[in-house]
Amino acid sequence: MLNKLVIFGVGLIGGSVALALKKAGCTAQIVGVGRSSESLQTAIDLGVIDLASSNIKDAITEADLILIATPVAQTPAILNAIKPHLAANTVITDAGSTKNDVLSCAKEILGEQFSQFVGGHPIAGAEKSGVTAATADLYRNKNVVLTPAPATNPLAIRRVRELWQACGAHVSEMPAETHDGIFAAVSHLPHLLAFALVDEVASRPNAEQLFGFAASGFRDFTRIAGSHPEMWRDISLANKAALLSEITAYQKELSHLKQMLEQEDGDGLHALFERASVARNGWAKTKKL
Amino acid sequence: MLNKLVIFGVGLIGGSVALALKKAGCTAQIVGVGRSSESLQTAIDLGVIDLASSNIKDAITEADLILIATPVAQTPAILNAIKPHLAANTVITDAGSTKNDVLSCAKEILGEQFSQFVGGHPIAGAEKSGVTAATADLYRNKNVVLTPAPATNPLAIRRVRELWQACGAHVSEMPAETHDGIFAAVSHLPHLLAFALVDEVASRPNAEQLFGFAASGFRDFTRIAGSHPEMWRDISLANKAALLSEITAYQKELSHLKQMLEQEDGDGLHALFERASVARNGWAKTKKL
Repeated sequence: MLNKLVIFGVGLIGGSVALALKKAGCTAQIVGVGRSSESLQTAIDLGVIDLASSNIKDAITEADLILIATPVAQTPAILNAIKPHLAANTVITDAGSTKNDVLSCAKEILGEQFSQFVGGHPIAGAEKSGVTAATADLYRNKNVVLTPAPATNPLAIRRVRELWQACGAHVSEMPAETHDGIFAAVSHLPHLLAFALVDEVASRPNAEQLFGFAASGFRDFTRIAGSHPEMWRDISLANKAALLSEITAYQKELSHLKQMLEQEDGDGLHALFERASVARNGWAKTKKL
Repeated sequence: MLNKLVIFGVGLIGGSVALALKKAGCTAQIVGVGRSSESLQTAIDLGVIDLASSNIKDAITEADLILIATPVAQTPAILNAIKPHLAANTVITDAGSTKNDVLSCAKEILGEQFSQFVGGHPIAGAEKSGVTAATADLYRNKNVVLTPAPATNPLAIRRVRELWQACGAHVSEMPAETHDGIFAAVSHLPHLLAFALVDEVASRPNAEQLFGFAASGFRDFTRIAGSHPEMWRDISLANKAALLSEITAYQKELSHLKQMLEQEDGDGLHALFERASVARNGWAKTKKL
């Protein structure tokens, strides 16, 4: 049970946490802090938060938990603003898609109080954005990864774990580096590959004709190329090292495939496609996607 | 109005043509020819075809139109079997995903009667396969590309065009080479990229962990990696030249992206992602996908 939860950035991600906790009946008061007073008013009108505040000191006084759910580029500024007023028993967590960079920055800014910070990453889709898209069920049966550091207070980890469990999520813990490696492979690389394909097609003189004949396979493959450019620039730069190593591995695989095609190695192509389709369909079955 | 339509391969593709024509009431008799008598019986039971035949001569006698809708690797054998019994006023068309190879093979096998052959490619999704998945609406508002050669009889083209229009499709015509170039870019390359990603991830020692955290972005990006390995081996080999040139162009784009990431060129990355997301979302809007 939380007496006071403060959410920085009451959009889809933060708003859905608020709604889930309200539905679960386990938070007395939820305070929203954000750049847009209009959007905070909407959050109040929709019953997502109880109170909006533009005064950070007032907002975080006596807070059990602070959730930073803004675009990740704002995290350093928010931590700097929080730091002077941060009580010893207030836990901070975030919802960013990369974790090594967030942990480094939290360590630098929070100093000894870094033990109160728990990095977090809810793996939940976000076709739409903004508080009007928030829903109490966004995290139900979804994965949330926490990336505590050796210095992190175990009680802080427990509090954040309970927050996400109350939202219906499956919570796991791993080092930030492991997290960033996994998501470079299964999320960040696919996004870059999709952006690259669409950009390449769109740059052709006959782009209109090409798009005219693109169908459902292209639609699904490129859906993530419709994602937010600023967010993906930040994720790419934040996870640069892991992502570069993923791109290199993928380039090697693609060269191998190209070579088989050049040599008309039908058996080799068939074996690769077969391995991929078995793996992909098996995965979709277990995931019930 | 067709008096007699013969369909080789009464699966999703051929069966859906049959159902659409029956619904439109514009074919007197539909005869199915196939390797599996069981599947042909199902087609009769479902009212997809009127008659099944294993005798090619009987089947194609007095046919106005023959549609080859088998896996594309069977096309040469079928054309060879048809040739000795082919009347001068029977038109042949196909539904294969590549067209240069089919046209070459038809030219070689049919000789002077090549003028009766019209290459075709219906662009319609095929999550499921087999005649039980066939539906009268599969081609409604979908694109069908015809690839007549200079030698093709204009009356043959018109007959095939009318067939697909009766199915509710938008029919366009272009040279086989143009067709193969377009689909290398918007269909064949994305398939290979998706196969490559899944194969690369599945080959890792921690594949299970990686798949465990893969979510909806990965799901959509890799959906086409669940496609039929044999079919995609054949398409890749058949469209080798165009596909190799697409892979090369994509490798160049990916190297460029990688270089921007190495140099931490945030503006460059943002510009690329922005171009891609604007193009992709604009396309999805026009396509109403």
